[in-house]
Amino acid sequence: MGAIKNARHPFYDHCDEALDRIRHEGRYRNFTPLARHAERFPVYGEERPDMPDGRDVVVWSTNDYLGMGVVPEVQEAAIAAVRDHGAGAGGTRNIAGTSPLHNELEAEMASLHGKEAGLLFVSGYVSNQASLQTILTSMPGWICFSDRLNHASMIAGIKGARASQTVIFEHNDLEDLERKLAAAPADAPKLIAFESVYSMDGDMSDIGAICALARKYGALTYLDEVHAVGLYGAEGGGVSQRDGVADQVDIIEGTLAKGFGVHGGYITAAAGIIDFLRSTASGFIFTTALPPCVVGAALQSVRMVRAENWRREALFERVNTFRQRLRAAGVPFTMTPSHIVPIPVGDAECCKRISRRLLNEFGQYATPINYPTVPEGTERLRLTPGPFHTDEMMDDMVRALATLLRAEGLMPEQRTGQAA
Amino acid sequence: MGAIKNARHPFYDHCDEALDRIRHEGRYRNFTPLARHAERFPVYGEERPDMPDGRDVVVWSTNDYLGMGVVPEVQEAAIAAVRDHGAGAGGTRNIAGTSPLHNELEAEMASLHGKEAGLLFVSGYVSNQASLQTILTSMPGWICFSDRLNHASMIAGIKGARASQTVIFEHNDLEDLERKLAAAPADAPKLIAFESVYSMDGDMSDIGAICALARKYGALTYLDEVHAVGLYGAEGGGVSQRDGVADQVDIIEGTLAKGFGVHGGYITAAAGIIDFLRSTASGFIFTTALPPCVVGAALQSVRMVRAENWRREALFERVNTFRQRLRAAGVPFTMTPSHIVPIPVGDAECCKRISRRLLNEFGQYATPINYPTVPEGTERLRLTPGPFHTDEMMDDMVRALATLLRAEGLMPEQRTGQAA
Repeated sequence: MGAIKNARHPFYDHCDEALDRIRHEGRYRNFTPLARHAERFPVYGEERPDMPDGRDVVVWSTNDYLGMGVVPEVQEAAIAAVRDHGAGAGGTRNIAGTSPLHNELEAEMASLHGKEAGLLFVSGYVSNQASLQTILTSMPGWICFSDRLNHASMIAGIKGARASQTVIFEHNDLEDLERKLAAAPADAPKLIAFESVYSMDGDMSDIGAICALARKYGALTYLDEVHAVGLYGAEGGGVSQRDGVADQVDIIEGTLAKGFGVHGGYITAAAGIIDFLRSTASGFIFTTALPPCVVGAALQSVRMVRAENWRREALFERVNTFRQRLRAAGVPFTMTPSHIVPIPVGDAECCKRISRRLLNEFGQYATPINYPTVPEGTERLRLTPGPFHTDEMMDDMVRALATLLRAEGLMPEQRTGQAA
Repeated sequence: MGAIKNARHPFYDHCDEALDRIRHEGRYRNFTPLARHAERFPVYGEERPDMPDGRDVVVWSTNDYLGMGVVPEVQEAAIAAVRDHGAGAGGTRNIAGTSPLHNELEAEMASLHGKEAGLLFVSGYVSNQASLQTILTSMPGWICFSDRLNHASMIAGIKGARASQTVIFEHNDLEDLERKLAAAPADAPKLIAFESVYSMDGDMSDIGAICALARKYGALTYLDEVHAVGLYGAEGGGVSQRDGVADQVDIIEGTLAKGFGVHGGYITAAAGIIDFLRSTASGFIFTTALPPCVVGAALQSVRMVRAENWRREALFERVNTFRQRLRAAGVPFTMTPSHIVPIPVGDAECCKRISRRLLNEFGQYATPINYPTVPEGTERLRLTPGPFHTDEMMDDMVRALATLLRAEGLMPEQRTGQAA
């Protein structure tokens, strides 16, 4: 008990030691500052101390999967909203921060997913965290059945609901999920939380089958379509739209920052659920509304993406072409049912080294994906080719990858045939 | 144990019942959709079913305290960034979402507060929640001393750190804080979390005195300057800058969405602390970076606000003028040392009624502030007059308030003198 004068707080040493450990494990992250050139996407500008004018870099890691953020009509919608309404919202949704654009975008997202209502959040992360935490705190006895590979934002919301119980089921394992549902008390309120496209592995869940289990065991379903909205389904309503099962999902969550190319997150559901979360979720209530320019741009983007299926077709044509060229060159990659192309590396230092050499020697940028984003030992490059990557860019990237993966012993010296 | 087929999930009924309860308690929130007219701020457009062209409303509840969101140079910076870089960031900070603008703004915020480094978050809410939760989870045995009136976002972060202990001290009560610090084990890592301006009451903390206690008892200090940045101090560095004590605070948190008029949140601190949070805070790592247009606009705004003290002088001249006119008319308000003018009401239904009548009958908008934003029984209107409110607007608002407060029995029928 009592006073300690002028001691350095131990947290400072803790930070230094933690950073040393992260460096020692090869997973210290340097963010590469890259300026997106809207007119030349996916070419970005890199500032370099050794080059006064910087240089061009081709980016293979964007989550603006369709390039909607640089579509002139989307940019013009952002600009018009800045001119009309200013740079920020000026308040929370309750405190003068709700513009007609916010209400219009919420209705648009509800319509996209065939739900009664929608609710905007400042990010997809917050939409998951705030919604799941609020739902799982709402009644006593909640049991949340959570896929082992759920995103950090869902885990944050689930863990944040202290009084609820969490049962993790093996990734996409319906038998394990059913066994665990059957073992739980029949009268406990249950929720199944899962994703459609798991972004780091690029695999998908069987939404219809999970919803069938949910009906059988009386569970609510919460589906994260963050890496699918805009890309799958006749209007970009996600895998649940493609599979014709959106009506079986209670709550569909998505983002405006990936397939739609702008910023912010949302949920859609029955009107009562949305109104309850609007009225009680701390992470929704106590935060400044999205700026009108973000909302205006997102509204324009969502409407175009819904109407223009050629954008989805162009994406998958490019993804297939890229995979063919990787295969022809013998570059190993993980085949996935989605648009995501992971290149397995398996070591944090090696992953960072390949990424650094791709950038420095070849002007190609692919983020190294290390722990905590993926489990240790499964480090990878994660490529997201899009409608904007040309054949020539693909050839350059395939050559660069082949050179560096050979140098690291991750593919044979000589081409010996086709990799899978 | 076992299966229940096709039952309606009890969460649907829970939502309906909770909403009924909220309605019954008079605290159901209807968001009033108001379109900010950038060129006529603080005049907004209200869409009304009874008026085909809508009508003009004067808003008294904006948190864009200086009107920076509608300063042409700030709007032009947003527009330039949309044109150059597109509508969104396209990725997390690690995944191709870090532009040179992000790094520049982080350096700017660090410089404003005299700290080594800064870190951007998608909102002030997330900056508090993610930073506090990560800090209080970092070492075993943390004790967090938290002011009773801390914002919901700080509470979310503190509660989210499950293994840490929380000690709530009475609001701004230094004796209570010292008693509680002295009673805690001397070797436990301690943190004091507090605000400079408490936004709903408009009162301020004695930052220097709290930091002196922190030194005496070896506690880390975490200060939320959300409602002070841009407004207090020679460059708008907040109350800690005004009082000359910023160097005594370990971590200063702020927002870009209020005094700076744009969007997003940030923290500033020693380089090691910032790098630790950058490397470990889930709410920072796993979320799309702020759009370049938001970052570009914020950079422009912060630079102008730092350089142009006349903006702060204009704010306080207007606040003082408004208070004089309220006082002259006998309208009761709470005198505060800040720019915030609360009008006490004390009942949720009455508060909503006054707000609704202000809007419908007088074209004046002031948000009703009810539970959970403030404790029940302390409901209020919260006015934030700014440089953009004219004398004429003030006269109109004072007359409208006098009429409605008299009608509710909250001020005498006849003017009997000066209220405090």
